[in-house]
Amino acid sequence: MNKERSTEVDTEKIKKAVVMLLEGIGEDPDREGLLETPDRIAKMYEEICGGMTVDAKEHLSKVFTVDSDEMVVERDIHFYSMCEHHMLPFFGKVHIAYIPKGEVVGLSKLARTVEVYARRLQLQERMTAQIADAIMDCLNPAGVMVVCEAEHLCMTMRGVKKPGTKTVNVVTRGVFSGNDSLQNSFFNLLSIR
Amino acid sequence: MNKERSTEVDTEKIKKAVVMLLEGIGEDPDREGLLETPDRIAKMYEEICGGMTVDAKEHLSKVFTVDSDEMVVERDIHFYSMCEHHMLPFFGKVHIAYIPKGEVVGLSKLARTVEVYARRLQLQERMTAQIADAIMDCLNPAGVMVVCEAEHLCMTMRGVKKPGTKTVNVVTRGVFSGNDSLQNSFFNLLSIR
Ligand SMILES: Nc1nc2c([nH]c(=O)n2[C@@H]2O[C@H](COP(=O)(O)OP(=O)(O)OP(=O)(O)O)[C@@H](O)[C@H]2O)c(=O)[nH]1
Ligand SMILES: Nc1nc2c([nH]c(=O)n2[C@@H]2O[C@H](COP(=O)(O)OP(=O)(O)OP(=O)(O)O)[C@@H](O)[C@H]2O)c(=O)[nH]1
Repeated sequence: MNKERSTEVDTEKIKKAVVMLLEGIGEDPDREGLLETPDRIAKMYEEICGGMTVDAKEHLSKVFTVDSDEMVVERDIHFYSMCEHHMLPFFGKVHIAYIPKGEVVGLSKLARTVEVYARRLQLQERMTAQIADAIMDCLNPAGVMVVCEAEHLCMTMRGVKKPGTKTVNVVTRGVFSGNDSLQNSFFNLLSIR
Repeated sequence: MNKERSTEVDTEKIKKAVVMLLEGIGEDPDREGLLETPDRIAKMYEEICGGMTVDAKEHLSKVFTVDSDEMVVERDIHFYSMCEHHMLPFFGKVHIAYIPKGEVVGLSKLARTVEVYARRLQLQERMTAQIADAIMDCLNPAGVMVVCEAEHLCMTMRGVKKPGTKTVNVVTRGVFSGNDSLQNSFFNLLSIR
C-alpha cells in the first residue's frame, strides 16, 4: 500500500517513445491523424496509471464506528486496467465482501480502492489480492473476500482470440478463508440479478 | 486499397520504444513482470497492424458468377481495431449489404476485408468507408451499405468515461445512397434476433 512511484509521469519521454513506436509499426507520425497522438497518449497515461502515486490508505483511513458484525457487500464495481504483459486493457467487475469488527468505511471508498489498484500496469490476480490486503490492513475486519471477473483484450483481440472469455478469480482473507458457508453467503448475494 | 506499408514492422525499434514508454510512466522495465513486455508488444503489433501490408483486392478478386441481383447481407462480423488518436482498442461489429451485378464473392472474403481495414491504427468512420469502397471497386456491385457499431476504450476507460456507449455509423454507395426503401430492407435484416 505504499506509494509505488514518487516521480510524476515523464511526459516528454512518453511522447518520444510514442513517435518511435509509430515509426516502428510502419506508420507516419507526421500524418494528420497522428500528429497529436503522442501528446494524447502522454496525457492518457497520467490517468491510466494514476493509481501508482496514490496510497489506498488515503481512502480507507476515514472509518465509521458501527455496532454490527454483518457482512457488507459491494458488488459490480466496474474497473478498467492495463495488462502488464501486453499493455492492452482488461476490464470487468470487482465484488467485495467484508465482515467488520466495529468499523466500516464509506461505500465509495471501496470503489476508490479498486481504482487505486486498477490504474496501473497490472495482473488480475495481483490486483485482486492488493484490494483484499488493503482492506485487511486499514480496516482490520474479521475477514475480506474479493471476486474479480474480467475480459482481457490480449486474449480477445489478438493471440488466442477468444472473444467473450472471462477470467474469474477469488481472494479470501481472515474468516472467509476455508469457510465454505461464508463464501457461499457472498456468492448468493452475487447471484441476485 | 493499395498496400499502405511496404516495410515490415521494425521489431527492434518497437522494443526500444516500449522500454522508453515504461520508463516514462514511472515503471521499472527490469522488474520481472515487465521483462518480456517489449518483446510481446513488438510481436503483438505485427498482428494488430497486420492489415497495413495486405491489399483487400487479394481477398475480393476471386468472384463467382450468379444469376441473381438480390441483396446479400453478412451481419455481425466481429472486429477489433486500434484508435489512432489514443492507440487504445475499439471493437464491435460490422454489417455489410451489397446488391450484386452478376458476381459475388465467398462469404469469408467480406470478413477478411473487414480484418484488412481493422488491423491498423484507425478511425471508425474511415474503416467503414474503406470497407465499402473496397467492395465497390473490386466487385462492381449495384450498391453497398456498411454499418459499424463499436465501443471505444478511449471513451470508456478514460477521458469522458462512459462505459457502454456505442458509436454507430453507416456508409452507403451506389443504389443504396438516398434510397430509404433499400436501406430499410437492410436495417430490417439487422433487427432479426
Ligand atoms: N494469470 C494471468 N495471466 C495473464 C494476465 N495478463 C496476461 O497477459 N496474462 C497471460 O500472460 C501470458 C504471457 O505469455 P507469453 O509470455 O507467452 O506472451 P504471448 O503474448 O506470446 O502469449 P499469448 O500469445 O499466448 O497471449 C499469456 O498467457 C497471457 O494470457 C493476468 O492478468 N493474469
Ligand atoms: N469520429 C471519431 N472520433 C474519434 C475516433 N477515435 C477517437 O479517439 N475519436 C475522438 O477523437 C477526439 C480526440 O480529441 P482530443 O484531441 O481533444 O484528444 P483527448 O484525448 O484530449 O480527448 P478526450 O479526452 O475528450 O477523449 C476525441 O473526441 C475522441 O473521442 C473515431 O474513430 N472517430
